[in-house]
Amino acid sequence: MPAPLHEAHPSSPGRRLPDTQQGMRRRNLARVMHTVNAEGPLSRAAVASQIGLTRAAVSTLVDELIRSGLLEELGPERPGRVGRPGSALAVSGRGPAGIGAEIGVDHLAVCAVDLRGAVRARAVRHGTNRRRPPQPVVAELSALVEQVVAKAESEGLWPAGLAVAVPGLVARDARTVVRAPNLDWHDIDLGALLPAELALTVDNEANFGSLAELWLRDDTPLDFLHVSAEIGIGGAVVVDGCLLRGTRGFAGELGHVPVRPEGPACACGGRGCLEQYAGEEAVLRAAGLTPGVDRVDVLAGRAAQGDEEVRRALRDAGTALGIALTGAVNLLDPQAVVLGGALASLAPWLLPSLERELEQRSAGRACAVRVSRLGPEGPLLGAAHSVVRAVLDDPAAVGTRA
Amino acid sequence: MPAPLHEAHPSSPGRRLPDTQQGMRRRNLARVMHTVNAEGPLSRAAVASQIGLTRAAVSTLVDELIRSGLLEELGPERPGRVGRPGSALAVSGRGPAGIGAEIGVDHLAVCAVDLRGAVRARAVRHGTNRRRPPQPVVAELSALVEQVVAKAESEGLWPAGLAVAVPGLVARDARTVVRAPNLDWHDIDLGALLPAELALTVDNEANFGSLAELWLRDDTPLDFLHVSAEIGIGGAVVVDGCLLRGTRGFAGELGHVPVRPEGPACACGGRGCLEQYAGEEAVLRAAGLTPGVDRVDVLAGRAAQGDEEVRRALRDAGTALGIALTGAVNLLDPQAVVLGGALASLAPWLLPSLERELEQRSAGRACAVRVSRLGPEGPLLGAAHSVVRAVLDDPAAVGTRA
Repeated sequence: MPAPLHEAHPSSPGRRLPDTQQGMRRRNLARVMHTVNAEGPLSRAAVASQIGLTRAAVSTLVDELIRSGLLEELGPERPGRVGRPGSALAVSGRGPAGIGAEIGVDHLAVCAVDLRGAVRARAVRHGTNRRRPPQPVVAELSALVEQVVAKAESEGLWPAGLAVAVPGLVARDARTVVRAPNLDWHDIDLGALLPAELALTVDNEANFGSLAELWLRDDTPLDFLHVSAEIGIGGAVVVDGCLLRGTRGFAGELGHVPVRPEGPACACGGRGCLEQYAGEEAVLRAAGLTPGVDRVDVLAGRAAQGDEEVRRALRDAGTALGIALTGAVNLLDPQAVVLGGALASLAPWLLPSLERELEQRSAGRACAVRVSRLGPEGPLLGAAHSVVRAVLDDPAAVGTRA
Repeated sequence: MPAPLHEAHPSSPGRRLPDTQQGMRRRNLARVMHTVNAEGPLSRAAVASQIGLTRAAVSTLVDELIRSGLLEELGPERPGRVGRPGSALAVSGRGPAGIGAEIGVDHLAVCAVDLRGAVRARAVRHGTNRRRPPQPVVAELSALVEQVVAKAESEGLWPAGLAVAVPGLVARDARTVVRAPNLDWHDIDLGALLPAELALTVDNEANFGSLAELWLRDDTPLDFLHVSAEIGIGGAVVVDGCLLRGTRGFAGELGHVPVRPEGPACACGGRGCLEQYAGEEAVLRAAGLTPGVDRVDVLAGRAAQGDEEVRRALRDAGTALGIALTGAVNLLDPQAVVLGGALASLAPWLLPSLERELEQRSAGRACAVRVSRLGPEGPLLGAAHSVVRAVLDDPAAVGTRA
């Protein structure tokens, strides 16, 4: 049977547990973890009433989660309540941690996030990775991972897995970078280059960025289209709280949606793709700046200072985004479009023309456009949290540290 | 909690059964039904080995399904096999039936399909429904439903529900036609107009058409984009075997994807939408024919006879479809695009330009384009089968006939 295409990541087997007593126990462990995570600290009795199991059944599950280091007891609850005082349960701050990593075009970053969602360690290296071969880049990344893991371990945590965000298309094996044009990488198996002792998940940066929006912002809808831009234009489609992955893992490629079919030729083989109007290079050129020297982040500064050429370039980019998004909104009917990454800081100058286009072209069918508050941090946080979510989704799959 | 957006229809509660002993029993009843449906006739022992439950557990489930009239025993298996001879089980041909109905712009149709998938009764009324008010149209449909139900009942079947395909956008309540431009219907609650004794599901014709492709053709992939055309252009997105519905139920609206953003004005408020190039009216005009007098089905005849004007019009429509589909394929990364409805019969003249456009614009990322063999029958069959599938997915929800 092929892997389901509309699902959490391979690192998250909890999503399709078998329909047996054993599978039910694993799903109930997950329900206890999610409940304590969302509502804790909670007593065993409160957990039982939340998830509709008996107090005895919940106690067995809780004991197992405490033994695995995933839950901890905070000591007896305050007295004065009816019945035997229960001990409040919380998600452990000393158990497994998710290690997130990002291979950016101009930086590398790694962080460790505990089960409570706190960033406990972090390391960054600035410097371009453009057209560098993968081996030295991944060797540098591995050194940063080692550093972050050592820091996490010194605080009593242990790494439950490593998730790496990359600026390119990733195969559904969640290891192979099929194409990362700005790194000039093709068919690179990151699994062969990274330390084997950590369970690995590789994904597109826009995918991890969209998951960060979903998991870390209470007001993110369950159905949205995430659009971000650094060097290229990234997109990700979230449906009912899950990433839409596509047959080969390439879903969400908004940058090559045709905006003007007879427009300028694009490196992808097409003409008039969105990247030809709203990609970094196109916008910098249209604003009279020099791609490769100036970066997208100078645009916000210039626009804020009232630079009319920059503002016009951003207005036109917003129009192109609006045209491409009209098609996407018609196809997907999402609750919202979320602008992330560098687009978030450019929103004041992109949004008016973008929203006008979307409104006029889809009378009554348009959807809200929102601006991400995570910005460029999204992909790294999304990566680390994907490991944490996998632990919450199937606690039984995580052994205690040997 | 909002209804999940990526799921079978509201009529199919089996998809999210609660995680209890009772829920497990209901899911196991569904597994028995699906196994016998897919592989039957089967003995109890064969069912048990297929689904990995004990023979005793399966016998209890089977007895319940026989009592409900969903399974039947075909009598003892042929002798000469080891052990006590078992009785072969088959899905019942005398139990519940799915009633499918279609409100077309130029016809009404109703059929009854039994659990084995056989069409057991059928009724059609030809004649235009353009701009007719809903009450008389639905009254005529109800008469056809009554006729088909009577025929089905005379063969020992009983109606498990009614599913109605309409040429328009349907709200997620699966009752309300929000907008059917060619009927000129707006916000019509079909539930208030149809007989209350049948459980009702209303959906867009392209959605039911895509489900028919999925369920009735063994070679349909689990991830595809379905494109059809009658009067308008219909689209439906199937991901991992489920329809993508969208926040408001409007997902799959391919007809209003911008193809040339500065192109002709469209009734939707946009410009240069796909319907302006590949919709019936546009193609008939481009072919020198008269919309409203000639219909899309004359095009295939003329093209086959070598009419150059018609062939050119279809070539141009294929180009426009290719541009719109490039964007859709980039976003969704489906395994295939399936051309259905009237587009199926026009495929020989549409496909060359459509595929050329898709190939050139998405180097290495294009997907196969296939032609439906169900054609215009798809929506009606999909509607009836949606009721049947709902029974297979949650047999416990179907009582025996009072």
